[in-house]
Amino acid sequence: MGLVVQKFGGTSVGSVERIRKVAERIAKSHADGDQCVVTVSAMGKTTDELVSLARQMSDPPPQREMDVLLTTGEQVSIALLSMALMERGLKARPMTGWQAGIQTDPIHGKARIEEIDTQRVRQSLDQGEIVVVAGFQGVSSDGEITTLGRGGSDTTAVALAAALEADRCEIFTDVTGVFTADPRMAPQAGKLKEISYEEMLELANLGAGVLHPRSVECAMTHRVPLVVRSSFVDEEGTWVKEAANMEEELNVRGIAHDLQVARIKVLGLPNQTRALTTLFGVLAEAHINVDMIVTSDHDNDRIDVAFSVHEEEWEQAEKVIEDHGEELKYLEVVSETGLAKVSAVGAGMVTHPGVAAKMFTSLSEAGIRIRMVSTSEIKISCAIAKNQAEKAVRELHSVFGLDVEEQTLVGASS
Amino acid sequence: MGLVVQKFGGTSVGSVERIRKVAERIAKSHADGDQCVVTVSAMGKTTDELVSLARQMSDPPPQREMDVLLTTGEQVSIALLSMALMERGLKARPMTGWQAGIQTDPIHGKARIEEIDTQRVRQSLDQGEIVVVAGFQGVSSDGEITTLGRGGSDTTAVALAAALEADRCEIFTDVTGVFTADPRMAPQAGKLKEISYEEMLELANLGAGVLHPRSVECAMTHRVPLVVRSSFVDEEGTWVKEAANMEEELNVRGIAHDLQVARIKVLGLPNQTRALTTLFGVLAEAHINVDMIVTSDHDNDRIDVAFSVHEEEWEQAEKVIEDHGEELKYLEVVSETGLAKVSAVGAGMVTHPGVAAKMFTSLSEAGIRIRMVSTSEIKISCAIAKNQAEKAVRELHSVFGLDVEEQTLVGASS
Repeated sequence: MGLVVQKFGGTSVGSVERIRKVAERIAKSHADGDQCVVTVSAMGKTTDELVSLARQMSDPPPQREMDVLLTTGEQVSIALLSMALMERGLKARPMTGWQAGIQTDPIHGKARIEEIDTQRVRQSLDQGEIVVVAGFQGVSSDGEITTLGRGGSDTTAVALAAALEADRCEIFTDVTGVFTADPRMAPQAGKLKEISYEEMLELANLGAGVLHPRSVECAMTHRVPLVVRSSFVDEEGTWVKEAANMEEELNVRGIAHDLQVARIKVLGLPNQTRALTTLFGVLAEAHINVDMIVTSDHDNDRIDVAFSVHEEEWEQAEKVIEDHGEELKYLEVVSETGLAKVSAVGAGMVTHPGVAAKMFTSLSEAGIRIRMVSTSEIKISCAIAKNQAEKAVRELHSVFGLDVEEQTLVGASS
Repeated sequence: MGLVVQKFGGTSVGSVERIRKVAERIAKSHADGDQCVVTVSAMGKTTDELVSLARQMSDPPPQREMDVLLTTGEQVSIALLSMALMERGLKARPMTGWQAGIQTDPIHGKARIEEIDTQRVRQSLDQGEIVVVAGFQGVSSDGEITTLGRGGSDTTAVALAAALEADRCEIFTDVTGVFTADPRMAPQAGKLKEISYEEMLELANLGAGVLHPRSVECAMTHRVPLVVRSSFVDEEGTWVKEAANMEEELNVRGIAHDLQVARIKVLGLPNQTRALTTLFGVLAEAHINVDMIVTSDHDNDRIDVAFSVHEEEWEQAEKVIEDHGEELKYLEVVSETGLAKVSAVGAGMVTHPGVAAKMFTSLSEAGIRIRMVSTSEIKISCAIAKNQAEKAVRELHSVFGLDVEEQTLVGASS
């Protein structure tokens, strides 16, 4: 008998009928003898509807009030799912974020979990109850309702699993696991049996979309074994866990892509370390996430800096830079949208030289121009034109031996 | 400068546009220099929709989970109303029941407020904020979300006013005040300028529908001056307060009616006090409210008992009695539906003999048969056939000099 935390997303609880299916799924785990803590998102389009209601009132709506509004979505889900479980004769108890002891910092709209007081959850588990916790929400130390922002429900699940020292955390979603590439882009993609936290983190950050990077980070820090699996199909999912013996045998585990990339070039910055510090400092203050960064000489006294941001943030980023023009003393800012990023990810990459060369060669042979490059120990990313992204993903998937027919790698299954 | 608690019901906050109007109304009070605490209900049909969702899942739905579900309705309202106030440049702070310190007993679905910890509300008021509190909800001492049941939002407002020692509590509703009778039944009805708590309590209990009896009871106990007024029309409402000089001049202040009455006759109960105690004991245990009670002799050893209940509860009441047949040892139970109750209410009644006689005479002259009678110090109620209720209300309204043309009474205005 173990303790398992299960998370079901908005699509999985999108209707009364689907919530009943979820209850059935949980009942199965419970019947296997597991103690169950379940976290759920808001039903289907609820959050969108609430956002639209708020925008009619105030645009942009104030964030603290938004949190009060949006958290009702998950509260509806925990009530209905608990009813569905009780209807099956199981004992269940719904808990909002504050009831489940989820303490966050006070940053409304993107709060971070600081601590979980698990007393109430444990008491309920000890009474043989299935605990149904509202995802995405918490309470700040001064008693305000907060939301965790994007990927919040995954993070709630993983953080609860960590705090409860659960045996595993199961993320139920609308796909059957983590794939070597997005099957919509590369039909040859296969599902991975397992993947390391580090690789998953790169994939999550690179737009694989199955798990939010925050939740993977949290799982990695607390060494919580994660399984990503389907709410609708009863099959083995993908395990995300410590690397173990996986590295040696693998070069590239998957190809990720992100279709919403913009590039900003700041030309002619003074050639001083302080200039870069100031540039990325003001962007960070404005909460703009900068991804790839490339610098090059402009002339003897000046440098050019190019970096990528999320497509939705390029206008704000440009404005922030222009607002600090006097301080930064650059010559010109040039932005470009319509870009994508494709990445090859694999923990074994660092010990296998030649991966980068192989990637550049295959893209260039496919007639795809590389605009920027960034690398880490376990990934290589290239910014390219958005309309060439699909071609690039298929090309790389094939070049790195991931196509289903060819797979002989430990981590992948057909 | 005073402290005022204002309550707006579901119709008043039924849409984004109406919430804006409510914000405008509150802004006016705030501009007059009042500190404002506002309580709101769920938007229009929200509660009905949530109930229907729950029923699809489980029927009847479990009460604790129902409370978790239903309280989201008011939470949406406080978020949106706070946004609307902030949009007008005012400082506002939304608070759920638990945030506002509303402690209740643990009876889900019909909890009673035990205590209000006003610290958080006062802090917010001290900062010049308008505090927007979710009506109808609270939290039990073991941290479960509770609802107050019918009339809950009125009760929240009055209880907050009492705890904060507010100068007044304004109940904004879809009528302009308390009338001498329901204007839909008696077009001659006029609005009262003021009415005593005791009279209002009788009217509320008798189905006048403007204020829930619980809230009037709470106002009476804590001597909170209440005003009932319109959300939509800017005119003086009706004050509900201590009796002062009103009594002497008045016989009957209003005519109330209740169209959902059923009568149950238990024939041939053993003529022992214990039999009555048992009968009304088992009904109370089943949470069935018994209203009028009449007993009469059956024969030397047995008595007949007739009593009225809410029309929706007669079947349950009959079942409870039948389930205790062995204990009660009665001969027969006979139930009758399709009844109504009409009542004349007035604090001066007790010192003006002849009110009852006048009432019985006028009903009988109008060809209306009286099925049961019950009296208190300030009211006389008669059960009659439902299809004669309107006629009875008009008749009594006229006989007791309440028709607008004739009114010279202190309490009434045209």
